Amino acid sequence: MKMDKGISMCKEGDNTLGERSLELHESAGGVIGICGKVPLDNVEDLSLAYTPGVAEPCRRIAEDPDQVYRYTMKKNSVAVISDGSAVLGLGNIGPLAALPVMEGKALIFKELAGIDGVPICLDTNDQEEIIRTIRNIAPVFGGINLEDISAPRCFDIEGRLRSELPIPVFHDDQHGTAVVVIAGLINALKIVGKEIDKIDVVISGAGAAGKAIALKLMYAGVSSERLVVCDSRGIIHKGRKEGMNPEKEEIADLTNKKGISGTLADALIGSDVFIGVSAPGIVSKEMASSMAKDAIIFAMANPVPEIMPSLAKEAGARIVATGRSDCPNQINNCLGFPGLFRGALDTCASDITTEMEMAAVYALASIVTDEELDENYIIPGPLDRRVVKAVASAVAAAAIKSGVARSCEFDQDPTV
Amino acid sequence: MKMDKGISMCKEGDNTLGERSLELHESAGGVIGICGKVPLDNVEDLSLAYTPGVAEPCRRIAEDPDQVYRYTMKKNSVAVISDGSAVLGLGNIGPLAALPVMEGKALIFKELAGIDGVPICLDTNDQEEIIRTIRNIAPVFGGINLEDISAPRCFDIEGRLRSELPIPVFHDDQHGTAVVVIAGLINALKIVGKEIDKIDVVISGAGAAGKAIALKLMYAGVSSERLVVCDSRGIIHKGRKEGMNPEKEEIADLTNKKGISGTLADALIGSDVFIGVSAPGIVSKEMASSMAKDAIIFAMANPVPEIMPSLAKEAGARIVATGRSDCPNQINNCLGFPGLFRGALDTCASDITTEMEMAAVYALASIVTDEELDENYIIPGPLDRRVVKAVASAVAAAAIKSGVARSCEFDQDPTV
Repeated sequence: MKMDKGISMCKEGDNTLGERSLELHESAGGVIGICGKVPLDNVEDLSLAYTPGVAEPCRRIAEDPDQVYRYTMKKNSVAVISDGSAVLGLGNIGPLAALPVMEGKALIFKELAGIDGVPICLDTNDQEEIIRTIRNIAPVFGGINLEDISAPRCFDIEGRLRSELPIPVFHDDQHGTAVVVIAGLINALKIVGKEIDKIDVVISGAGAAGKAIALKLMYAGVSSERLVVCDSRGIIHKGRKEGMNPEKEEIADLTNKKGISGTLADALIGSDVFIGVSAPGIVSKEMASSMAKDAIIFAMANPVPEIMPSLAKEAGARIVATGRSDCPNQINNCLGFPGLFRGALDTCASDITTEMEMAAVYALASIVTDEELDENYIIPGPLDRRVVKAVASAVAAAAIKSGVARSCEFDQDPTV
Repeated sequence: MKMDKGISMCKEGDNTLGERSLELHESAGGVIGICGKVPLDNVEDLSLAYTPGVAEPCRRIAEDPDQVYRYTMKKNSVAVISDGSAVLGLGNIGPLAALPVMEGKALIFKELAGIDGVPICLDTNDQEEIIRTIRNIAPVFGGINLEDISAPRCFDIEGRLRSELPIPVFHDDQHGTAVVVIAGLINALKIVGKEIDKIDVVISGAGAAGKAIALKLMYAGVSSERLVVCDSRGIIHKGRKEGMNPEKEEIADLTNKKGISGTLADALIGSDVFIGVSAPGIVSKEMASSMAKDAIIFAMANPVPEIMPSLAKEAGARIVATGRSDCPNQINNCLGFPGLFRGALDTCASDITTEMEMAAVYALASIVTDEELDENYIIPGPLDRRVVKAVASAVAAAAIKSGVARSCEFDQDPTV
């Protein structure tokens, strides 16, 4: 991949990464597997873990379905589900090729949050088939993490499943990304000394992540008059005709209340914050220069950002974040979903509500202490062990407050 | 559960088993979980197991789908799938209540064969829904183990999926049971000195197990003139009108070529072998006494057999086997499916053929040495560590011979 000169402020790209990743995945035979949690050394063990003893937990659950949270893996398991339609920057590569990503995500669930993530790759892109299939396999899982499903189907799939299933259904590319972005923004605003209800924000990208970020930004206090979302055709506004879909119509209804139109460059003039979840290199130095003083730029197109950090800094930006692990301020979903699901599972929650997501935002932001807070450290590193505990406990409290927690305090065995 | 007096030859039933099983399942939080197979200690680990490095295995698989066996969990994973319609002796208790059994089976897969068994419980009993759902989730798995799905739906579901999916689909209640029964019978015949092609066999039960046992018995050499299958209405024969279905019609076509009719008691008179996969206590002492000299009785209704072993022995039976772990000669599916799937996965097989199943039968039977062979030891114990290795290697050889082995000798990491 050709890197533009701006990369110089970050470490050099590592050309051996792909080869070494192949080696790792091949030698380990995938990055996750199943483990037994009880012994199976003799016939006595067998008769307790399996027949005939297992009939007793079966009977109890048949009598009272909520006992499934007591006697099975359900209370700690999340299905990590993709149809392979929007995998990384690779596009619709199909369910087999999506599997390494789902395994990686399951590994993160386990290592960071003690959660049993089970990869499920669906051999269909049909929306109704996807909904039906996930509904049918839901009984084993305490939650559903949707992943890498292309927009706009992802909106309907998540919405329908959330209303139909008695467990949380969470599309990480939407809400997980939004949680981490907003936590980072809250901390960036502390540094530049601006109030969230008095900033002008431009989002580039109206797919899964862009829409979720816009909605949650308003929930966090950004004014709908000062929030503008752009797609590849420019500013989304009421009355725009070309390139619209139901989700963009909703964006047009809810944001940009001043009704401005024009290009991304037009939108950026005088704005305080740019949030890019779109395409590499679409923000030039001149565009970044046109922003307000102490501009904040989150350029999260991956692996090549909307503008490289060094260029953004040259253009006068005060704080720059990307999705790259080799640059400062990495906006990484690992900071969100493990703690969010940990909190949801710990309360046997039936849903992940906006209140729970916002609790995660503030918990995540507050992990960075005043002493630590710095232009190059607005958000913890992706593997910071403080994160899951803090996020999970805030999310669990919010679950109880939201009324979505189940009474499942049997014999909780918190793994974190 | 009331035990009849015949139990005296086996150990006493353990009344605490259910309670202790509940304790085990609750304290462990289910009997299986997910484990990471690679480290995730720093950002370098993250960039190899997950993004950006993971893009490379994804790309390779997108270019050549068979590479999924090289870089992912697929080559070692089996979905253990039930709709909860025929769980143990508990009947249609639904998908949530079936989960402890599927977890137990996954534990056995792991501990005996190193296989990653993933429990899937389906929230539908509709045949077409089940087929569609399993087809949609197949990409992650190297094989499908169907479990506790009621007859006659199980026949069609297995048949359709076998023909549509490029991985083995195996209904353990049918074929796994048949493999172990026939291995035990082969050894029992050695003791009584009878030839398999010269014995009269009566099977009680025309569900999933009964039909599979009948078909494989004939494959192993039992004459279709000397094999009779009974259901609760008596002998199944051509022209019988009541209580038939397509599977029983097939049984009537293939077995009982002399066309006898009557009751189970009629069928048993003079027969050499009784195989029960039906209901407790339906064979009386008198019925057992009417069998030929050196009679072999496999009474596998669980937990209460068709006839208790002590009663069968009093009636003159030479060899008695049951499904009970507290009696001699336990016919346990643990002796079959782990090695069968191990052999199939080791060859990345596209199917489990009858040849592979029969290879498992003979490998399993031959594990019991001439020195060990005894009226009370016709089959290894369910956790005998010799079994999986021997069965898997015979099955793998048969897979290659059957032409269903894939070329997947990348960097095999045999876990057994």
